[in-house]
Amino acid sequence: MEEYSIKAFVFDVYGTLFDVHSVVNKCDEFFGGKGTEISKTWREKQLEYSYLRQLMGNYDTFYSITRDALRYAVKKHDEQLDKLSEEELLTAYIHLSTYPEVKDILVQLQDKKVAVFSNGSHDMLDPLIKKSEICDLFDEIISVDEIRQFKPTFPSYDHVAKILEVKPKEVLFMSSNGWDISGAKNYGFQTAWINRQNLPIEELNLEPNIVYQDLTSILEWK
Amino acid sequence: MEEYSIKAFVFDVYGTLFDVHSVVNKCDEFFGGKGTEISKTWREKQLEYSYLRQLMGNYDTFYSITRDALRYAVKKHDEQLDKLSEEELLTAYIHLSTYPEVKDILVQLQDKKVAVFSNGSHDMLDPLIKKSEICDLFDEIISVDEIRQFKPTFPSYDHVAKILEVKPKEVLFMSSNGWDISGAKNYGFQTAWINRQNLPIEELNLEPNIVYQDLTSILEWK
Repeated sequence: MEEYSIKAFVFDVYGTLFDVHSVVNKCDEFFGGKGTEISKTWREKQLEYSYLRQLMGNYDTFYSITRDALRYAVKKHDEQLDKLSEEELLTAYIHLSTYPEVKDILVQLQDKKVAVFSNGSHDMLDPLIKKSEICDLFDEIISVDEIRQFKPTFPSYDHVAKILEVKPKEVLFMSSNGWDISGAKNYGFQTAWINRQNLPIEELNLEPNIVYQDLTSILEWK
Repeated sequence: MEEYSIKAFVFDVYGTLFDVHSVVNKCDEFFGGKGTEISKTWREKQLEYSYLRQLMGNYDTFYSITRDALRYAVKKHDEQLDKLSEEELLTAYIHLSTYPEVKDILVQLQDKKVAVFSNGSHDMLDPLIKKSEICDLFDEIISVDEIRQFKPTFPSYDHVAKILEVKPKEVLFMSSNGWDISGAKNYGFQTAWINRQNLPIEELNLEPNIVYQDLTSILEWK
């Protein structure tokens, strides 16, 4: 671990603080045996559409992108989706549970700046956090939507540093997404990859400062 | 079909003119039962790394990205890769076959401007085309590497229009990749999606002008 004084602990949301597995369950409920496949395509397309829209200069909110990705996924697997089902599936994104260690860790960081930083737009993000057991534990809820720049662009992470009024190296950024860690490292944040799925490090020449299996050990950065 | 005078026919390469299935076969040869999975991850990561590097402002050639994606894919599926195997697998990308209808179609377009436009760098692209039966049928072999802007960015397609000295609407762009068609449409090309895999249209509000199952019917744009 490198020696830096960390002033702000910044967390990605989906898959990092909140377990998205209940979205998979919801897909199973609607699509039976195809639920797992559909939710996998849904997640892949959700990410891909955020990349593609950013690359084409066609920004749209993560909520819209999540809806569009769902529509694609359902079509790809030859299923039907009516308005009501679509709404119920999308609503799954605001009823997620935090991972078991999350609340305790956040409580112990209250003498530092603590923020979330997500591709999610506030229409998804705010209700999710408000309903959760960690609603009072953040100084800032930061969305890329405020500047219409999806992660992993440089300006997206720069937005966080500006809001928190810290230097890049004073931020420990945590995400379970390898690509998000690459982007944060590329910008200049300290990075802890929360490798919950035990995946290889991305081959992008931007290795995380440290890799943990869950958030428990991030306290050694205090 | 809309009425335009098409002056240039521009083709994507991998999956559009050339069948990449032999890459899958090569993976099967090296990794047995895991070949299909590894080649799937390889292709996904190849695309993802091109998007991510462009978004982060960390351009690298498609050859390097293809190598990095292969390394990731092999690690993900708990296999080993030595230098020699890596080279042999990468070489598969310069020994691809064209789809059955390709040569005949290209021959019939010789009174128009005909070009390829690929994310592939010239170190991959030139040997592939040179070895193929269609090597003499193009006016231009255009790579994003010339301007270090991967598809689907706006400047990448703009580079093609500039080289061919045509207006965007005078180009018919053909690709089997939905995201590539979205990018070309976003730029202003006429687009024919060669939907060889029978996939749904991407949910990006950029529908192709027309969809074909293979290249045969593009002659109606002459």
